[in-house]
Amino acid sequence: MIDRRDFLIGAGAASLAGGGALAAPPVQKARYAVVGLGTFSIGQILPIVRDCRYSALTAFVSGSPQKAHDLGARYGVSRIYDYADFDKIAENDEIDCVYIALPVGMHAEYTIRALKAGKHVLCEKPMASTVAECEAMVASAKAANRQLGIAYRVHFEPNNLEAVRRLRAGEIGALRYFSGEAGFVADPAYPPHKWRLTKALGGGGSMYDIGIYALNAALMSLEETPVAVSAVYSTPANDPRFKEVEGGVEWRLRFPSGISAQGSSSYSYGYATRQRTFGTEGGITLDPASSYDGVTMILQRGSRRETIRAGDPATQFVAQLDGFSQAALANQPHRTPGEMGLRDIRIIQAMYKSADANGAAVAI
Amino acid sequence: MIDRRDFLIGAGAASLAGGGALAAPPVQKARYAVVGLGTFSIGQILPIVRDCRYSALTAFVSGSPQKAHDLGARYGVSRIYDYADFDKIAENDEIDCVYIALPVGMHAEYTIRALKAGKHVLCEKPMASTVAECEAMVASAKAANRQLGIAYRVHFEPNNLEAVRRLRAGEIGALRYFSGEAGFVADPAYPPHKWRLTKALGGGGSMYDIGIYALNAALMSLEETPVAVSAVYSTPANDPRFKEVEGGVEWRLRFPSGISAQGSSSYSYGYATRQRTFGTEGGITLDPASSYDGVTMILQRGSRRETIRAGDPATQFVAQLDGFSQAALANQPHRTPGEMGLRDIRIIQAMYKSADANGAAVAI
Repeated sequence: MIDRRDFLIGAGAASLAGGGALAAPPVQKARYAVVGLGTFSIGQILPIVRDCRYSALTAFVSGSPQKAHDLGARYGVSRIYDYADFDKIAENDEIDCVYIALPVGMHAEYTIRALKAGKHVLCEKPMASTVAECEAMVASAKAANRQLGIAYRVHFEPNNLEAVRRLRAGEIGALRYFSGEAGFVADPAYPPHKWRLTKALGGGGSMYDIGIYALNAALMSLEETPVAVSAVYSTPANDPRFKEVEGGVEWRLRFPSGISAQGSSSYSYGYATRQRTFGTEGGITLDPASSYDGVTMILQRGSRRETIRAGDPATQFVAQLDGFSQAALANQPHRTPGEMGLRDIRIIQAMYKSADANGAAVAI
Repeated sequence: MIDRRDFLIGAGAASLAGGGALAAPPVQKARYAVVGLGTFSIGQILPIVRDCRYSALTAFVSGSPQKAHDLGARYGVSRIYDYADFDKIAENDEIDCVYIALPVGMHAEYTIRALKAGKHVLCEKPMASTVAECEAMVASAKAANRQLGIAYRVHFEPNNLEAVRRLRAGEIGALRYFSGEAGFVADPAYPPHKWRLTKALGGGGSMYDIGIYALNAALMSLEETPVAVSAVYSTPANDPRFKEVEGGVEWRLRFPSGISAQGSSSYSYGYATRQRTFGTEGGITLDPASSYDGVTMILQRGSRRETIRAGDPATQFVAQLDGFSQAALANQPHRTPGEMGLRDIRIIQAMYKSADANGAAVAI
């Protein structure tokens, strides 16, 4: 059990202090196996772990031994697994958590295997290809008494958090509408995009990979549970990229209070990640909202506008990983748990159902 | 007939030149009767006529003799009509055009009476309460061989025009999506808002008065004819303002190319007039888009953003009035003719039909 383990003793403050009255207490770090060493892991996860207070790297899981070896040398990680011997992580007491950074179609299998191995799992978004997979993942976490988090990093991004704080504080009055767009131009010649254009690995199309940001933000901003959804596809005609997954979805969520949110996802328009919440007293815009840097908030009250930078967006990856580590160490739910990932996939599947029926309202 | 009339000779360049080789040719001015001396006329129309090259004021039509007299003294207008003797404008050769600045519910009647009196008519948006009224107005203009324009002023606003020019020039690639919001908090204690909250004078609710900006902009930006619409109401529950007209509409237009536009209108969120068009290469934002001043464009290509101020938004009223004057003088269609106003009311009525059917798609 997690509370009987010996966690790695942090090498930070504790090692600098020589003991005695001023010594900081030792910091427990959650130790991670990162599964999948693709562009995202290499660019966004591995480099930030050294800045974490509660997180450390102890293992890699990869189908590319040479790449894993090279990255291991760089990040001081000597334990390498491949996908065949992955389940042996159960025997490794130096792994507390598993970070699933695989294509979506592999999330459910590896998450469940990691949970069965007794590890906590932080899984990239979107959670999985189907509602059934998501449900199985949640059930597996419960059965294993381990934490399952979905890596919705903007819940740890300082400007997004400040926007939510201001919405909750009533700074733009009663909330009346949310609109959001999320898109980029998917390039099938670029490997990290190529798998997203397949149903088996992408799970779905634009709504799965990028549209989920605006959807998740709508629910974070309005803090209501939607009752119905309507959506249409906007996949460009005869575009060879979109044989298996949709190229665009325009969606609408309806809420019990009578208000709606609308948004758009696209694999065909220039890089966009924008959100705006409107209230009786004004509006809060985030544009860009979910990029790795440059996140900017504009608070409007009447005709007065204020540009606010509440913090460095680059901190979101560290804050997310440390947030999950603390949840794992305490065996308490993460801020963005599996249930949230399941909720979002359920809504996206309802969007597909609506779009298949020409935009008819689908209850959720 | 218009081409047999003697138009007012402009007092501008011509009067400064003493004749001879350098003298500018005399400028014909279209002479206006302004119908309705409310907040909008007083604040936005009357003050700008002196800056017009092709437009002059010669008459007022008002139910408030004292107000008309006072404003007449201020603007050099001595001919005052009331609503009872309005049809006598037919006998006045010093009136070429009529500007209808009445509540929406009165547009059709006074437009048709003015056309029957042989005058060209520039009518405020939204065109009229019903599709049938709009059709009658268009038919009346045809029968009278006079021009009918709808005062969609952003078609004369330099930043909106520059945005359209860049869209047409392909600066953001192929167009994929449009989103727009338009709203203000309607205050029933404020007379210019009060009539908008009645069905008889407002014609409709938020979608009629303010939402029409984003709708019209979507069609101006995407330059496609929509084939279907879906919309839902978002009128706040139990809000005493909304006994007769809707407090909010969230809408979606679908286009033959497979793309959609989505937008929002509200009488319940803080002042918002925002539009964004997304293309394969980037996006163009106008925010605010249709205010009297401060209109700002942001051109995004990739992650690069450029703020563009293409001109002074304050010029839109002058450009619109002079544009209509030139159309009237030449008896040629205005840039935003009655047919455009009819198109928009037809679409809004389809939105209401969809919203009454819980957002079901309605063909248009």
